[in-house]
Formats: sequence, structure tokens, C-alpha cells
Amino acid sequence: LESRLPKVGTTIFTVMSALAAECKAVNLGQGFPDFDCDPRLIDSVVSAMRAGLNQYPPMAGAAPLREAIAAKIGRLYRAAYDPATEITVTAGATQAIFTAVLAIVRPGDEVIVLEPVYDSYIPNIELAGGHAVTVPMTPEFRVDWSAVRAAVTPRTRAIMVNSPHNPSGTILRDADMRALEAIAVESDLFVISDEVYEHMVFDGEPHCSASSYPGLAARSFVVSSFGKTFHVTGWKVAHCAAPAALTAEFRKVHQFNVFTVNTPVQHGLADYLQDPAPYLGLAGFYQRKRDLFRQGLAGTRFGLLPCEGTYFQVVDYSRVSALGEADFARWLTTEIGVAAIPVSAFSEHQVDRGLVRFCFAKKDETLKLALSRLARL
Amino acid sequence: LESRLPKVGTTIFTVMSALAAECKAVNLGQGFPDFDCDPRLIDSVVSAMRAGLNQYPPMAGAAPLREAIAAKIGRLYRAAYDPATEITVTAGATQAIFTAVLAIVRPGDEVIVLEPVYDSYIPNIELAGGHAVTVPMTPEFRVDWSAVRAAVTPRTRAIMVNSPHNPSGTILRDADMRALEAIAVESDLFVISDEVYEHMVFDGEPHCSASSYPGLAARSFVVSSFGKTFHVTGWKVAHCAAPAALTAEFRKVHQFNVFTVNTPVQHGLADYLQDPAPYLGLAGFYQRKRDLFRQGLAGTRFGLLPCEGTYFQVVDYSRVSALGEADFARWLTTEIGVAAIPVSAFSEHQVDRGLVRFCFAKKDETLKLALSRLARL
Ligand SMILES: CSCCC(=O)C(=O)O
Ligand SMILES: CSCCC(=O)C(=O)O
Repeated sequence: LESRLPKVGTTIFTVMSALAAECKAVNLGQGFPDFDCDPRLIDSVVSAMRAGLNQYPPMAGAAPLREAIAAKIGRLYRAAYDPATEITVTAGATQAIFTAVLAIVRPGDEVIVLEPVYDSYIPNIELAGGHAVTVPMTPEFRVDWSAVRAAVTPRTRAIMVNSPHNPSGTILRDADMRALEAIAVESDLFVISDEVYEHMVFDGEPHCSASSYPGLAARSFVVSSFGKTFHVTGWKVAHCAAPAALTAEFRKVHQFNVFTVNTPVQHGLADYLQDPAPYLGLAGFYQRKRDLFRQGLAGTRFGLLPCEGTYFQVVDYSRVSALGEADFARWLTTEIGVAAIPVSAFSEHQVDRGLVRFCFAKKDETLKLALSRLARL
Repeated sequence: LESRLPKVGTTIFTVMSALAAECKAVNLGQGFPDFDCDPRLIDSVVSAMRAGLNQYPPMAGAAPLREAIAAKIGRLYRAAYDPATEITVTAGATQAIFTAVLAIVRPGDEVIVLEPVYDSYIPNIELAGGHAVTVPMTPEFRVDWSAVRAAVTPRTRAIMVNSPHNPSGTILRDADMRALEAIAVESDLFVISDEVYEHMVFDGEPHCSASSYPGLAARSFVVSSFGKTFHVTGWKVAHCAAPAALTAEFRKVHQFNVFTVNTPVQHGLADYLQDPAPYLGLAGFYQRKRDLFRQGLAGTRFGLLPCEGTYFQVVDYSRVSALGEADFARWLTTEIGVAAIPVSAFSEHQVDRGLVRFCFAKKDETLKLALSRLARL
């Protein structure tokens, strides 16, 4: 059986979580909280199940949820999406991104991705028959827009961006979005904007969503995720906002991929979204955890890179160990009892720069235990 | 925006459900029950949520669920699948089928499908870059295996089968499975076996699963669905069983499509599967509804086709109306107040034979109301 994805193994997040479990390490690898969601959110889902909302929802998503999503995006980013024709509920952000890729990428098309790149993007492009063109970010994990512009060819179909950026924790600012908009408009490209960490932007900075920029909004699939925002990564509900013509193509693929998404969870989320406090408070909640984690590493030999958003902190371990990133991440897991993700796992070419990513979406006590182990190094 | 699926509109099930809702028709179109699931199943999911099982499950599925699935298949079909490497939990059967197609179909490959064909199969093949080769079933909705054999070419990669068959309600019997096995083995084809109605086979007949035939099991992706079996079509949890080498490729795609499936629902299902009574009793439950529906139509001008399995009854309306199938289904919905699905919606070439499909997964009172309206014709 000749593989359709010959370069692909098991995703690094699964590999490191399995190793962490095996060694009983503190798992700061895969990105998920080790604390529970708001019990009110569970109550809302339970009510929907007990009310008998257990059969297929509409293909595009339960109407109250699509309306709540459109209202939220409208309020936060001054973007007017029609819930009937421009919002689709998906089985997680990964499914939304893959579906957008399948909807627009034709065999032979090129798609620009920025490296470090989330590990699903390139296989997604290849399964659609396209070619990924990787543009490296700068050593500070900024986007070099002149390099992006230089990578555009007549075959370029789309560009995929992610802000706040996993794994680096950098964000795209207003000037970045304007540069992206200019390139996308002048070369007539589609944009897939992965904004799953939209509610985790720190230090009072705004999240610059593609949906706020008219030139971008007109050509973008904007993806976000409830799993990240509401501490329920295992519920697998996300959404894609895109203009009606793009959404029509998106839904053609969506209906023959997952068709629909869990009904009671959709209704529970629609109910819970009526209160904006949980998502508006998220940045403050995670900023405190970021600061706790950074302060704990401040006196050590680990170097801290800036963390402007996401629940990830990238750390330079080059004064601690000479091991390569993948080996260091394994060693840290098995010998020190703290799992991390090598940043090179986000790179097609496995560049090794002595960086690992820690997830700080953990109870304070978990972070303190990990810090006490790391401080020994 | 040039469409990747130019021939595709909104799936017929969504179109007819929307029309039924608009006209307040009795919806016997899209296949889903209008009664609720066992409250014990809901209780199991609620327990999982309240116990904090709300973060990512393992990529292949929650271990207890994979074990329960393997045990069930082993018991029913004497097939030994390893839950660690041969069972994957999916976000519905549609996602399982699409993922299997993407895992094996390479650009230019041919895939044989039998017509009438479920509406996702051909778009699935096309999105993978393959070509669907349709082999018509006989007028009695049996498979003509010599026609299948004649359709095999050096480019044929796989064959997709569905038993019990949607929409016709026919089943593949032992002789069919042996014929399929012979063709697949001699031409070295993969098989995608959609068995989502496996627990709805009537009149004491067994369900012949591809997993029971060694030559087939070695080359098949066998898909089934909990939504159909446990009356929770909106929960979107299904599974794919395949030999380890095939499952490895399946999971490579799966992890970059949906990555994982709702955690608490998986744990709830694992718990509920400990009792075989609900699925073992399903055939009797639906056979009674089938008989009620057929008896209700017996005195009318509608002709009844055999129904050996599924929760669908195909009816010949040619003595009632001269309209084409799509028009008749719309007319029946808007004027008579009973929604149905035109059988031609399952055909690439829209052959019109005066047949519509009714779903009898409904409360007895719903079926009686529909019958009272149909009896007027
Ligand atoms: C989908 S795997 C885990 C979550 C994640 O996105 C990450 O850890 O980067
Ligand atoms: C996925 S749509 C509805 C269910 C179904 O399979 C059908 O009605 O045939």
C-alpha cells in the first residue's frame, strides 16, 4: 500500500502525550488544559440532550449557534457575516481548515505557508493535490512580507496564516494584516486564517482578525475554535466564517466530509455564548498563567522568547543542553519528567535551533511542579 | 471561484428536510428517528462530562470505546481486530468513508460504485483526485457481479459497497460477499464496506459483514455508525475497522482531518456498549415498524418493493402519479404533507423510475399520520 502521505507519521502531539503518560511526566506538550470547563457549559449541553436534541442538526450548524457566532464576530471585529450563508459549524478547527483547503485548492495549485507551520497544513494541501510553498518566519518569529510576496507565483492559490501563532506565541499586528491584505488583493489569493487562539492575546494588545479587514474578509476563511476558548478541547466544535460564495464551496465539501456536528454540544454552546464574560476574561486568565510560568523560569538557564498570545511559551534551552530538539524533548520527558514539543516538529526541514514549546494551560500547581523540575537544570 | 465539485449542490437530505419543515410535512425523507434514545445512554455521557472527560481523547479514539467496538465485531462476525491498531473512532460514518477514500485513492485511480449510490461517495472519490466508475444495480436492486467484474480495469483501486443498502433496503447475502471477495482478491482491490445499517436486517437473515470474510477483511475498511444503531444521529460517532497497514494510512488522514472525536460521547458509548441488548434488539424493533408501514400501504395504489434491511422503504408511485421522482417528492411534501426522497437522487444520471424512499424510523403515531395522508392518493 503506497502511502498518500509518505512523509507523515503520527502527529507529534499524540506521540509526546503518549510518552508523557508512559513516564508519568507533567505534560506541557500537547496543548490542552488540565482543569475543567465551567460547569454551566456542561449544564447547557445536558439540558439539550435531555430535551431530546439528539438528531441531525442542519448541515451548516444549529441555527442558534450560527447566530451567536455571527453576533460575536460582529461585535468583536465589526464584521457582518450572515449566519445563514456565511457561518459553518465544524468538528474542530482542524476539520475547518482541511475543508477550506479542499474547497479551494486544485491539483497543481501552490499554497504559501509560514514556517514554523502547524502540522496539519502541509498534509492538507497535499491531500488536495496542491503544493505547499514554505516561507520561513524570521528568527524572532515575525513574518517577512517581502519574502511572502517573493514566493507568490502565477500558480499560487492561497496563503495560510495563524495568529496568535502556534508554536511561537507571536501575533500578527495591524501592519502585518495590511501587508497580507495588499498581497492577497494584488495577487488575487484566498486566505485561510487560523485564529483559534483569538481570545488569548496579552498585554492589552488587540487581536487583529482577518474578518476586520475588508480586502481580507472578502477572500478569507476565518477559523476559530470553542475547544480552546472554553477549555473543552475534547468537544471538537469550531467554526468557519467566509463570504457566501466561499462558504457555498466550503459547505459542498463539509457535507460530504462530516456532514454535521454534534447537536447537543452545539445547542449548549449557543446558550453559553449569550454571556460574553467567559471569552472576554480569557486573556487575563491566561496572562496570569503565562507570567507565573515565565517568572518561574526567569532565574534558570532557559532563555524565554516573547509570548504575546496563545497558551504556549517557547524556551531556548541551548545553555542547558546540546541535544537536538527532538532528543531534548524526549529526554526532558523521560528523565526530568516534563513533556514539551520540539519547535522543529513545526518545520518541514526540521531546523534545529535549541527551542522547545511548553503549554501553560495548566493548573498553577501543575505549572509549579513542572517549574520545580525544570529549575534543577 | 471555480468549484472543486461543480456538479454538487446541497445534499438532497438537507433540501428535503428544509422543505418538510417549511411545509410542516411529516418528514419521512432524511433518515433519522423522531423518537429519543435510551435515557441510560444520555446518563452515561453526562457522567463522563461531569467526571471531567472533556479534553482531547487519543487520536484513534478513547481506548475503552475501541475495545468495546473490537469485542462487539469479534462476537458478531468472528473477526479479530486489534483495538490498538485496527479500530478508529470517527466523527460519523460519512467522515470514516471520506477518510478511507482519501487514504487509498490516488489521482487518476478508478473506484467502482454501485448505483443507486449514497450521495457522498462520488464527490469523495473526486476530491481525492480519482474517477468513479458506476455500475448499475439490477431493477430489483441486486448486484450484478459479472457487470462489476467487467468494470474492473488496471486503474481500478477500490470498490465501495453498502449493505444493508440505502436507499433500496436490499442486503448482500453470503453468495454476494463471496463474489465480491473473489473479484477483490483476484484484481487486488481495496474495499470500503459501508455497514451502517448492520443491526437492521429483517426476517431472521444474518448481516453478512465484510469483516467475516478473510479475503475481504484483509483489504477492507468496514464502517459502522452509532448514530443509526442507538437513535442518536446527531451525536456523530462512528468507526472504521481495517487491518493495521490500512488503518495506519487511514489514521494519517484522520489526524489531519478531524484529529479526534468528542470525548464524553465516546466514553458514554463505551459504557453503553457493555449491554448488547440494545443493538441485538434493533432488528425486531424496526421490523415491526417496517411491517406497520407496509401494511398501511398495502391497500393503496403504491407498489411496495422488498425491504430486507435499513429503516427505508422504497415505493413505486407510478400508479399514483406521472410526475418525475424529484417533482413527485416535492409535490408529496408540499401538497400531501409527507416528505420522501426521490431514488433518482442516488443516481449520477438521475434515472427516473417512479420510485421514492420513505424512512420508517418514526413513532407509530407519525407513521400512522403519514399513512392516513398517503392512503388518500
Ligand atoms: C490537535 S493536537 C493538540 C493541540 C495543538 O494544537 C497543539 O498542541 O499545538
Ligand atoms: C447524512 S443525511 C441523512 C441520513 C441518511 O443517510 C439518509 O437519509 O440516507
